[in-house]
Amino acid sequence: MNEKYLLHNVRPMGGAAVDLLIADGCIAQMAPLITPDATMTLIDGQHQLLLPGLVNAHAHIDKNLFGHPWHKNQTPEPRRIVDYVDNERRVRRESNLSARTQSAREVRLALAAGVTHIRTHVDIDTEAGLAHFEGVLATRDEFHASLTMQLVAFPQSGMLIRPGTVDLLETAVKLGADCIGGLDPSTVDRDPVRHLDTIFAIADRHGVELDIHLHEPGTLGAFAVELIAERTRVLGLQGRVTISHVFCLGMIDDAYLNRLIDLLLENRIAIMSLGTGVGAFPPLKRLYVAGVTLCTGSDGVRDTWGPYNNVDMLDRVKMLGYRSGLRRDEEVELLLDIATHGGAKVMGDAQYGLAVGCRADLVVVPGDTPTEAVINLPSRTYVFKAGQLVARDGRSLV
Amino acid sequence: MNEKYLLHNVRPMGGAAVDLLIADGCIAQMAPLITPDATMTLIDGQHQLLLPGLVNAHAHIDKNLFGHPWHKNQTPEPRRIVDYVDNERRVRRESNLSARTQSAREVRLALAAGVTHIRTHVDIDTEAGLAHFEGVLATRDEFHASLTMQLVAFPQSGMLIRPGTVDLLETAVKLGADCIGGLDPSTVDRDPVRHLDTIFAIADRHGVELDIHLHEPGTLGAFAVELIAERTRVLGLQGRVTISHVFCLGMIDDAYLNRLIDLLLENRIAIMSLGTGVGAFPPLKRLYVAGVTLCTGSDGVRDTWGPYNNVDMLDRVKMLGYRSGLRRDEEVELLLDIATHGGAKVMGDAQYGLAVGCRADLVVVPGDTPTEAVINLPSRTYVFKAGQLVARDGRSLV
Repeated sequence: MNEKYLLHNVRPMGGAAVDLLIADGCIAQMAPLITPDATMTLIDGQHQLLLPGLVNAHAHIDKNLFGHPWHKNQTPEPRRIVDYVDNERRVRRESNLSARTQSAREVRLALAAGVTHIRTHVDIDTEAGLAHFEGVLATRDEFHASLTMQLVAFPQSGMLIRPGTVDLLETAVKLGADCIGGLDPSTVDRDPVRHLDTIFAIADRHGVELDIHLHEPGTLGAFAVELIAERTRVLGLQGRVTISHVFCLGMIDDAYLNRLIDLLLENRIAIMSLGTGVGAFPPLKRLYVAGVTLCTGSDGVRDTWGPYNNVDMLDRVKMLGYRSGLRRDEEVELLLDIATHGGAKVMGDAQYGLAVGCRADLVVVPGDTPTEAVINLPSRTYVFKAGQLVARDGRSLV
Repeated sequence: MNEKYLLHNVRPMGGAAVDLLIADGCIAQMAPLITPDATMTLIDGQHQLLLPGLVNAHAHIDKNLFGHPWHKNQTPEPRRIVDYVDNERRVRRESNLSARTQSAREVRLALAAGVTHIRTHVDIDTEAGLAHFEGVLATRDEFHASLTMQLVAFPQSGMLIRPGTVDLLETAVKLGADCIGGLDPSTVDRDPVRHLDTIFAIADRHGVELDIHLHEPGTLGAFAVELIAERTRVLGLQGRVTISHVFCLGMIDDAYLNRLIDLLLENRIAIMSLGTGVGAFPPLKRLYVAGVTLCTGSDGVRDTWGPYNNVDMLDRVKMLGYRSGLRRDEEVELLLDIATHGGAKVMGDAQYGLAVGCRADLVVVPGDTPTEAVINLPSRTYVFKAGQLVARDGRSLV
């Protein structure tokens, strides 16, 4: 039986103060003033902001180095994606990292930061086999009451170029992956059609969704978007496909971008973007206004790739706003919508939101307005998941 | 008489642990172990990092809105620089902000973040006259023992286009400005030669330095760099001129960039860059390796322009690293050098550094390595200015 909470004096999205009754995991009541009774645990929200749970729709929670000494980044030149992948595989092998342990560490930090949903891509390759995947599966089980988690079976080291990988991916799907992943079908796997046909076939056979890493630039990446849309339509997978990164959407001309936006809308393909420090990335405000489903994420954090990512999705909104040139509060809140409702939609969560009847996935945080919280990144005062208090004052309780 | 401190067990730049004896405002001794005596106040550094004081070489400390409710950014379109300037002048007029009060608030926050030096540009225009300037002068006096501060007399609203501004700028220089400023001589003031001749003449007459805001793009901005270099050479002002922002250095072709780098080196012109969220900015690593003097800063924080800047210079290093694609620890430390030694050089501080005999401007902060501190931005444990403890555990003591 879940504890019943009366959360007093919080301001949903910075609006007028309300009380929330949280019962049976849900928002049972929301009103200016609710009279407490003896069955309720009273929590004073002290007129702070109330946000819905933050959604990290693109993580790699098995890759971090939390709990280990600071990793000095010395990735060898020329630092193409394949160099980062090779370097990471080497570090993981040499340091004998446990995906089980590392992913649990990242989950606790994420909960403390108000993250209630994570979609994580888990490396599957012919060297590690399913070891990382099984570790993260165990973490999903451990935290099943505290976090909504989806796993993507992800061929980080390439798929067609590493014979045996396809079978491993399909096994991961049978073991419980929610999505089949993909990676740069042309630049890494050297055969976009066969790459995409293979992963779409797995999705079709097993009824899972797709979430495809696409770093490919310009018109090459855009061609892959077209191929993905064609397969989504033919297999009737509308609303079940996400393309991640998709830097190419920030590199093509307006007319072509408009054609791709139409394809995304027709096939209800979601776009995951977490921006990038250098170079182009999708024009988020434009896609948002056009009605494309958008989500964002942390990517790998505290890993061998680079130091700039972290588990805090409010910080991700800040980085996206900075990189997108979005300075007005309404624009920052548009990005926050991507990191909350957008991500929840991509993860298929129909019970998400700040309304009566929704599951109580909630974050209480200081600030006058949501934008102030995004900018100042204060520690999260309370985090609820499914009506249970999972973090307080920036620390995980689970 | 200054207090004498024995700072025990700190790791300069992450190296081997040492003790520091701080006396008469300076680092009097630095050794693996110093025996305390009754005249010394003992401070346990707990094996934390020791950094030299952080240098904010480009601030606008009179413009912030600290202590006021969150400012909802609604800058009207089309949001060119002139629109931000007009919007800001309107907000300052309507809210009756005191430059004296606001600048003191920003100084305290900066001290708490380990900033020991600030060069601030102060708006001078025909509407506010010298009111902002006099407010910041008073703040410089108030904090003279806690902070090295330089003032730039800055024509934020234009100079030639607002008759009367030149006289006001010259008066500010007589009142104690360290530098004469400038602003976009072509795009704002419509006459690059007359603009630059005017401010160089003021610098020459009064023996002050120059620090010129240059947002102008591409070859137009590059032409202004050439004009600045010519005047620097003719007037013998080598080592006394800074150009701020200089986005154009990130926009021109390699051959032209190399010619400009030669001009900067020949005339010992410093470049101030704090990057930008969108668009090009100077290639910092390349300039650094070429030997150009570089510094960075906060720009305006918590102001009407945009929400993304803050007083923490470690956070600025992080933003610059993210935007420059510099992921290796040695590259992050190169940027940290710009935010410390580079800024101190630009501000003409010959007593700066982590060596015996240097003035004790010091920051103690948790972290294995400087890069870890840049990434995690922990609160500063101790901040010393000229041998006095000015902040502790993230709070200003003055």
